[in-house]
Amino acid sequence: MIPPAMILVRPQLGMNIGMAARAMWNFALDDMRLVAPRDGWPNPDAGPPAAGADHLLARVAVYPAVAEALGDCALTFATTVRPRHMAKPVVTPREAAEMIRHAAARGLKSGILFGPERSGLTSDDLAPVQTIVTCPVNPEFGSLNLAQAVLLVAHEWFQAGTSAAAEAMASERDPEPHIPAPHADVAALIAHLQQELEAAGYFHVPTRAAATRRMLAELLSRPQFSAVEVRTLRGVIRALAEGPRRRQLPPADEV
Amino acid sequence: MIPPAMILVRPQLGMNIGMAARAMWNFALDDMRLVAPRDGWPNPDAGPPAAGADHLLARVAVYPAVAEALGDCALTFATTVRPRHMAKPVVTPREAAEMIRHAAARGLKSGILFGPERSGLTSDDLAPVQTIVTCPVNPEFGSLNLAQAVLLVAHEWFQAGTSAAAEAMASERDPEPHIPAPHADVAALIAHLQQELEAAGYFHVPTRAAATRRMLAELLSRPQFSAVEVRTLRGVIRALAEGPRRRQLPPADEV
Repeated sequence: MIPPAMILVRPQLGMNIGMAARAMWNFALDDMRLVAPRDGWPNPDAGPPAAGADHLLARVAVYPAVAEALGDCALTFATTVRPRHMAKPVVTPREAAEMIRHAAARGLKSGILFGPERSGLTSDDLAPVQTIVTCPVNPEFGSLNLAQAVLLVAHEWFQAGTSAAAEAMASERDPEPHIPAPHADVAALIAHLQQELEAAGYFHVPTRAAATRRMLAELLSRPQFSAVEVRTLRGVIRALAEGPRRRQLPPADEV
Repeated sequence: MIPPAMILVRPQLGMNIGMAARAMWNFALDDMRLVAPRDGWPNPDAGPPAAGADHLLARVAVYPAVAEALGDCALTFATTVRPRHMAKPVVTPREAAEMIRHAAARGLKSGILFGPERSGLTSDDLAPVQTIVTCPVNPEFGSLNLAQAVLLVAHEWFQAGTSAAAEAMASERDPEPHIPAPHADVAALIAHLQQELEAAGYFHVPTRAAATRRMLAELLSRPQFSAVEVRTLRGVIRALAEGPRRRQLPPADEV
């Protein structure tokens, strides 16, 4: 069973990283990743609250940005307290757990982003993610802390595994399922498109450029394109951008 | 809906009482009871970690013994990490939540005991209780702290809420649901892309052209792009196709 990566984005306090590690290990999860932790890594404050789950901290991988941390993940999730208006599916931790188990049964890795303690994830963090995870909570009091959010997601993941039959059924249901490309492929596609659009003068209204970039990232992430589809789209971008110059040449894929 | 009483038996640290209160209120539970808290009650250490759930602490009822704290409860539960040998049913937090909801619908109150931080509940505490609640955890690492145990039980209780409540939340979750564009818009997008690709010499291998066209149509239909997204993509195609021409690049045969 491929465990999902629990990815803490710009976490502030070492104590919370330690508590999150402990919460993960309570439910047998051990792939913790950090994106740009405020106080660097390793952080001595993380040790004591992780007591008993120290081996997770020893193996933590640190990344400069969200896209890198999600690199090998075919399913990408981001946790938010209350979803802003976004054209993305919103699921509960329980539904996410089912999706993660289902994907793992097909050999696919999932990654879940958790935002910084105070501010949460930014729109830019959320743009390239496929699915939003929001835990239904008291509408009058929605504040879960970082380790609690990790605990609830990890708990649901563990509970979803107690029915191994569900997985066997899932693979029977989808003999040739659609397999989403790893996030790194999608991130490269997004970067490629944005670069060519930049060259073509598409982002000429500076005030709108950031929002447009986000929309494009979202547009290209949501469909869960397969590796073949991503390759095709990159060929399309190349053909459109270079077409007039290279009409007589084979597309770059085949060179 | 009658909320279950969350009963902390001989809790040691005020901080943990405060964190438990906060975890309860995250899931709209407000009936906290204490049995013989070590440091008496009220406890000033409980206030800060309860931030936002202080009203629960103000209403906490304190009892000298477990039997009194369970006095008005028709259903009685006790949480343990690992059930000792006992002639009592053992359920998960999820199953307990169903039982509690079911009982509440019949006007019956439930009470759940949580043991002291280090030692847990004694055999004497457990003896008068009907049902044991044990959360399935990593068999190698079963230690949940007090507030986490309260959080998981409260979370399950909330999730087990009526489907009406879930639906109410779902509508709140998606204030402006994603609306796919009419098919005509998508068809025009596909035609536009294929026309520009044709012009760029992309379909130069005739035997593969039909399959590639199908894949592109599939690619662009599956995501259910909104009208705004379709417009954006058409702008992207235009920019890519026309950008280089606007930059006055010579045609390929003149290079």
